[in-house]
Amino acid sequence: MKIKLEVPNAVLRRLPRYYCEINEMSNNGVVRTSSEILATRMGLAASQVRQDLSYFGEFGLKGYGYNIYELKRGLGRIIGVYRPSILIVVGVGHLGHALLQNFNFYQEGFLIDAAFDVSAEIVGTKVNEIDVLSLDALDDYCRENHPTVAVLTVPRSVAQETADRLVAQGVRGLWNFTGVALRLPDSVFVENVRFSDSLLMLRYRITKHDEDLRRQQLRMQEQRRKESLK
Amino acid sequence: MKIKLEVPNAVLRRLPRYYCEINEMSNNGVVRTSSEILATRMGLAASQVRQDLSYFGEFGLKGYGYNIYELKRGLGRIIGVYRPSILIVVGVGHLGHALLQNFNFYQEGFLIDAAFDVSAEIVGTKVNEIDVLSLDALDDYCRENHPTVAVLTVPRSVAQETADRLVAQGVRGLWNFTGVALRLPDSVFVENVRFSDSLLMLRYRITKHDEDLRRQQLRMQEQRRKESLK
Repeated sequence: MKIKLEVPNAVLRRLPRYYCEINEMSNNGVVRTSSEILATRMGLAASQVRQDLSYFGEFGLKGYGYNIYELKRGLGRIIGVYRPSILIVVGVGHLGHALLQNFNFYQEGFLIDAAFDVSAEIVGTKVNEIDVLSLDALDDYCRENHPTVAVLTVPRSVAQETADRLVAQGVRGLWNFTGVALRLPDSVFVENVRFSDSLLMLRYRITKHDEDLRRQQLRMQEQRRKESLK
Repeated sequence: MKIKLEVPNAVLRRLPRYYCEINEMSNNGVVRTSSEILATRMGLAASQVRQDLSYFGEFGLKGYGYNIYELKRGLGRIIGVYRPSILIVVGVGHLGHALLQNFNFYQEGFLIDAAFDVSAEIVGTKVNEIDVLSLDALDDYCRENHPTVAVLTVPRSVAQETADRLVAQGVRGLWNFTGVALRLPDSVFVENVRFSDSLLMLRYRITKHDEDLRRQQLRMQEQRRKESLK
């Protein structure tokens, strides 16, 4: 299956969301779905879902809908989850720990067997079967295992230098949780995880709702006032 | 300042990103910026930035650009960060702990003085000056303090029941880190934090890059083969 060349960026950004939803349905034993069901789950129009998926391949049959297994395999192949490459976690504070404990890296196409930290208390322990190694061992580990992606969960103050060191060791992608805008060569892929965005969106939606309510109340007061003057 | 009524959803989704970027610039002492600079930071076209910001108010002057202070105040007011409301964190495992320790809730328009957990080891302690209370005390706390938003960092298995309990106590927004698709009344605002999306995007970008490279190599081999046949 080949991905068409010119997929708009907005559609591409939705690719992981589609994969997650379909994966979850698949895990729940669903075998068949429709653009309407997917649309509801994604918060999109059904026509948008059909258009989006058509960019990624010949999925779906009129009157049948989508076969979950085919869709999962097709999108998974485009994303590359069936060719797992090696990932490491750098920084095992609370956030790194939470990711090691709860996140299913394998499902996203990554193998992990090591995490790195500087704290003597945690180096030498295991979290969820994964060895926590000393940061001193990072370069040796990279030379031997060639990790493709590093999860960056170190403190802000050492984010840039740690990223530089990882890139020098051949790491090609960074999943950056530090909140620092890293300066890196163009050849390195970075995804910045920004928690703030969604909390600000929540804040905005509540503010907007309150204001709409207040405006409505003012309009009703005004109307009552006018009526009482009649 | 009034927000125009029909802001497209895609523009609205970028509002928090704009606010974060501008806030960071402001924290770094920047007083003036341009649509070009913002565009680079946001990964957008400068024309898109000008159009986006025009939805939110009369920002920017031709030949001057944008005054950071005005932009921050204007967008902040629309989001509602200057009318802080109360937020609580429910679930102080590693992830809850990481958020309490590192996240600047006040900057996003929220006041926090309490977090909740069931573990006897952590109840009664403080994380970053914030009291960790027993989950048994949740209902009393809500009746007295009327929190607007709850950060949900409990285990998946109790996500729905905890959300139901929070909603019954009048919480109006949930920042959901549990990965569970919560079933809640329409009147409750939910923002689901999905780590996976950005890691899958990273996976995809690396896969795509490798495939492009491989195709290019095949093309070059083919060309060399043809040339050698001449």
